[in-house]
Amino acid sequence: MSENDFSPSLIFRQNMLTQKLPGSGIDCIAINAGPMLTYLTGLSFHLMERPVVLLLPAGRPPAIILPELETAKLKGLPGGFQAFAYGEDPSTWPAVFREAVQFTGLEGGVVGVEPSRLRFLELSYLQAAAPQARFVSAEESLAALRMCKDAQEVSAMRRAVQIAQQALQATLPAIRPGLTERQIASELVIQLYRAGSDPELPFGPIVAGGPNSANPHASPSDRPLQAGDLLVIDWGASYNGYISDLTRTFAIGNVQPEYAHIAALVKEANQAGREAAKPGFPAETVDQAARGVIDRAGYGKYFTHRTGHGIGMESHEAPYIRQGNTLLLQPGMAFTVEPGIYLPERGGVRIEDNLVITPTGAECLSDLPRELLSIGS
Amino acid sequence: MSENDFSPSLIFRQNMLTQKLPGSGIDCIAINAGPMLTYLTGLSFHLMERPVVLLLPAGRPPAIILPELETAKLKGLPGGFQAFAYGEDPSTWPAVFREAVQFTGLEGGVVGVEPSRLRFLELSYLQAAAPQARFVSAEESLAALRMCKDAQEVSAMRRAVQIAQQALQATLPAIRPGLTERQIASELVIQLYRAGSDPELPFGPIVAGGPNSANPHASPSDRPLQAGDLLVIDWGASYNGYISDLTRTFAIGNVQPEYAHIAALVKEANQAGREAAKPGFPAETVDQAARGVIDRAGYGKYFTHRTGHGIGMESHEAPYIRQGNTLLLQPGMAFTVEPGIYLPERGGVRIEDNLVITPTGAECLSDLPRELLSIGS
Repeated sequence: MSENDFSPSLIFRQNMLTQKLPGSGIDCIAINAGPMLTYLTGLSFHLMERPVVLLLPAGRPPAIILPELETAKLKGLPGGFQAFAYGEDPSTWPAVFREAVQFTGLEGGVVGVEPSRLRFLELSYLQAAAPQARFVSAEESLAALRMCKDAQEVSAMRRAVQIAQQALQATLPAIRPGLTERQIASELVIQLYRAGSDPELPFGPIVAGGPNSANPHASPSDRPLQAGDLLVIDWGASYNGYISDLTRTFAIGNVQPEYAHIAALVKEANQAGREAAKPGFPAETVDQAARGVIDRAGYGKYFTHRTGHGIGMESHEAPYIRQGNTLLLQPGMAFTVEPGIYLPERGGVRIEDNLVITPTGAECLSDLPRELLSIGS
Repeated sequence: MSENDFSPSLIFRQNMLTQKLPGSGIDCIAINAGPMLTYLTGLSFHLMERPVVLLLPAGRPPAIILPELETAKLKGLPGGFQAFAYGEDPSTWPAVFREAVQFTGLEGGVVGVEPSRLRFLELSYLQAAAPQARFVSAEESLAALRMCKDAQEVSAMRRAVQIAQQALQATLPAIRPGLTERQIASELVIQLYRAGSDPELPFGPIVAGGPNSANPHASPSDRPLQAGDLLVIDWGASYNGYISDLTRTFAIGNVQPEYAHIAALVKEANQAGREAAKPGFPAETVDQAARGVIDRAGYGKYFTHRTGHGIGMESHEAPYIRQGNTLLLQPGMAFTVEPGIYLPERGGVRIEDNLVITPTGAECLSDLPRELLSIGS
């Protein structure tokens, strides 16, 4: 989609953010290269050693600081944007930051930033240009802005789920004992692109067999699959900048009875979590519903992570589906439900789906079978 | 390669870094998830909303702060590492940071960080746990540590170049007028994986045709290729965590004489840059050699970026090949040589190779033809 298709909603998004600033004690938002900058401007920049910073002050025109060689990207921007471009010599950058700080009037004010994105690099240039400004986390305002997806965003996520599901189905027939986790991950990535994923995947797939499946964040290793293994595959696609994030677990041939038992429990926990996802209920009720199933069966201490996280332009964003999160679910919120049981040194099971809250309940975007399928024999 | 294979050089790397700290006025290094953490520990973590921080104090044992669900990764670590693990509830994280700060004694000291990696998130937790500590850029010490590649690193980069070249050669026969930049980029990514790239590519390929090729950092668009276009392809592979970063430019059918002229100039500039890459000479001499060719032909103002950047675990690292960089080239330094000419609104040419400085000159890892080949007809 071209930048111009987005312009009306871009101005809406910027206004939604800046109109609420005075009430939150923040005078200006500073955003560096990443999904939030894209959400607010339609522009994409690689995060690199050259800083790119968007400044959105309350009640004043916005500014963007960027390398001269990136200025061609600004053509599609809505009017009123002021660009401050710098050349290749870093010694000239502080002066450009000072000009932008002056234009936006942020010196002495409170500047809200995105804690998981803004780097020491951008912060240092901003602090040097505005030594009296105070920098604070604007995480809540920024997360709230993107938390409820519009129809266009949900449609992109639905497609990202379809692409991911199609890719897994194309990969499964190739899986057999003797293949390494890395080989399976490579084949899955190829199939993600064949199925139409954007070039930048949300994350490298997790393919974890046997004892590695007991590590929720394992990286694909050179361990060959063996009969009797559990195999956890956690993967996702991107489409128009929106992502999917799914997990399914498979049995390689026949597995121990306890593995089949925990797989059935996790499936039940996943279903309980999905059914608890309704507008007006706190996010933690989804976690409680899924965790309750596993706790009652005596495996609570092997479910070592929260039940889910928000998804959209990023694979980890608000709302977080965990104990203690009393945020009320609203239509448009999108998140994963991904309970798991991990038996240390032996094996693990996780089943992850992607949901969007609707006015009456939740739409589950993913529909691959959740049974422990035996493959590779 | 397993973590254990790396252990001797890991301890060497940690010692190389911490032994020099006292002389640089830094008491402790703080590194978050990213290539530098992997370089120093062999561990990989996704950068996400849960902070992971490695603390390397001078003369004391190192510590790592990480989520409980990641602690299984610590098994391969050399002895003496102290782990500080936190659970899912963020309200418990500050106490864990305070324990780690106490263990490493960094309160009141000078803490060196990686400006292009450390985020406001980790910085805020560290500052809250050590309010009297001063945080400064340790960019020079950290960049110096990784700048000269050992034989194992060069071997991985050589393979990453071979994979990238093989992938492009497999993609070229499919390119023809009517295909969009996005379609070509998808096919190239598929071929990168087929050829053996790691799951995480160094960057999404740039495929820029016609007027888009005049933008050095264009993103692949839905514009279909047309006869008469210049087509810039900038792509790379990863192998064992090391990357390649290449560019070639093609003519779609027949192009204007000026396009052929600038392509010949850029080829000559690329060659001049490669030939100027020798140990003991300042990095800027490579830039001067390449830029001189383009300047003398009257196209200087259309070569809008530096001649190159270092490569290794990242696609942009030291040494930077730009005017003003007087750093002397040394054996093991690896970088790109990538001059370009960009005619605004019309088209651009860039030719990028990957070099490693040797005791007597430089090894060019890439050898695809540099002529303006006509394809797609």
